[in-house]
Amino acid sequence: MQIAIVLYDRFTALDAVGPYEVLARTPDAETVFVAEQAGPVRTDTGALALMTDRSLAEVTSPDVVVVPGGPGQSALMEHAPLLDWLRQADATTTWTTSVCTGSLLLGAAGLLTGRRATSHWLAVGELERFGARHVPQRVVSDGKYVTAAGVSAGIDMGLTLLGRIAGDEYARTVQLALEYDPQPPYDAGSPHKAPAHLVDALRERSRFIRS
Amino acid sequence: MQIAIVLYDRFTALDAVGPYEVLARTPDAETVFVAEQAGPVRTDTGALALMTDRSLAEVTSPDVVVVPGGPGQSALMEHAPLLDWLRQADATTTWTTSVCTGSLLLGAAGLLTGRRATSHWLAVGELERFGARHVPQRVVSDGKYVTAAGVSAGIDMGLTLLGRIAGDEYARTVQLALEYDPQPPYDAGSPHKAPAHLVDALRERSRFIRS
Repeated sequence: MQIAIVLYDRFTALDAVGPYEVLARTPDAETVFVAEQAGPVRTDTGALALMTDRSLAEVTSPDVVVVPGGPGQSALMEHAPLLDWLRQADATTTWTTSVCTGSLLLGAAGLLTGRRATSHWLAVGELERFGARHVPQRVVSDGKYVTAAGVSAGIDMGLTLLGRIAGDEYARTVQLALEYDPQPPYDAGSPHKAPAHLVDALRERSRFIRS
Repeated sequence: MQIAIVLYDRFTALDAVGPYEVLARTPDAETVFVAEQAGPVRTDTGALALMTDRSLAEVTSPDVVVVPGGPGQSALMEHAPLLDWLRQADATTTWTTSVCTGSLLLGAAGLLTGRRATSHWLAVGELERFGARHVPQRVVSDGKYVTAAGVSAGIDMGLTLLGRIAGDEYARTVQLALEYDPQPPYDAGSPHKAPAHLVDALRERSRFIRS
């Protein structure tokens, strides 16, 4: 089994590293980071680059595709080299997945039409423009398409997927090894839980960034 | 403010990327990934490398130090270039922090003697050999020393620290932006919650790896 995690300029690191940390422990699987050109790919903050070991052209039929999100996604919504690759890879995947605004790239590739899916809470309106039906859950499955909510939701998506691939017992072992017993010091991780003025402020900022 | 995240061969990616994703959003701060030599540093799985932009020698007085854990830590417990750097940096930090077995490196540098601290649940015995007092919490603070439990606990540590640096309101905004509203599909993330046979199996495997 080959698991391909697709990076691009200005992706969000945790979107990719969350599922990676879980899925790279799949038995008998190879995990590979890919980008249009192999080499370092810079994250949205500019403070970090992740190495990709292979180009898209070198990875033609992965079993699992993971597409992270991040501000760089918006520049790629009509970028044929990536969208063509996603369509081609999807033709033979067992699982096609995304985290955060990665689902907008799957949508732009035409892969989510008529499907249940999710995205970062700030991007669910845009997701529906691609014919997807937003389901307000942290991890949404529709057949082989598994999409996660914003950034950190990729860890939950990774564990959900690992359970399906390798069984619940194995996924629990990985959860224990990663000591994934989250205890955030605040309870502000979703727009339904955070104070309304913080939600409004982020919505306003996002409108500005995306316009 | 400068935040230095220290990488080394065979670190665990999420240990570093969890706190990074939160702390890189600290207002008026520069986040920098450092290693003994600048360049790509391979993670424990072999499937990923993170770029470090600076060498230890180039970063002499960071305000915040973050030391991730990972299997590679055990080869560095007497490695003077790293331990000397940690001691030197600590002399002027505002916060000296670790995730997972990163606390063993702080301990080996003599920085946790007599302090309350934590580590990956499989490593708390070793932590106490450095004179630290283990506190069974996900994030443990003792003055400027903040240590986190295994791997994913670095996200909770990052948010805790961000709250102290930039205030609760700002930390909540970052939590919301990262949609950190964790919903693991299993409840097996700590040795107190996972089935006993899984805990025993990981303990056994860890004994084999560390011997």
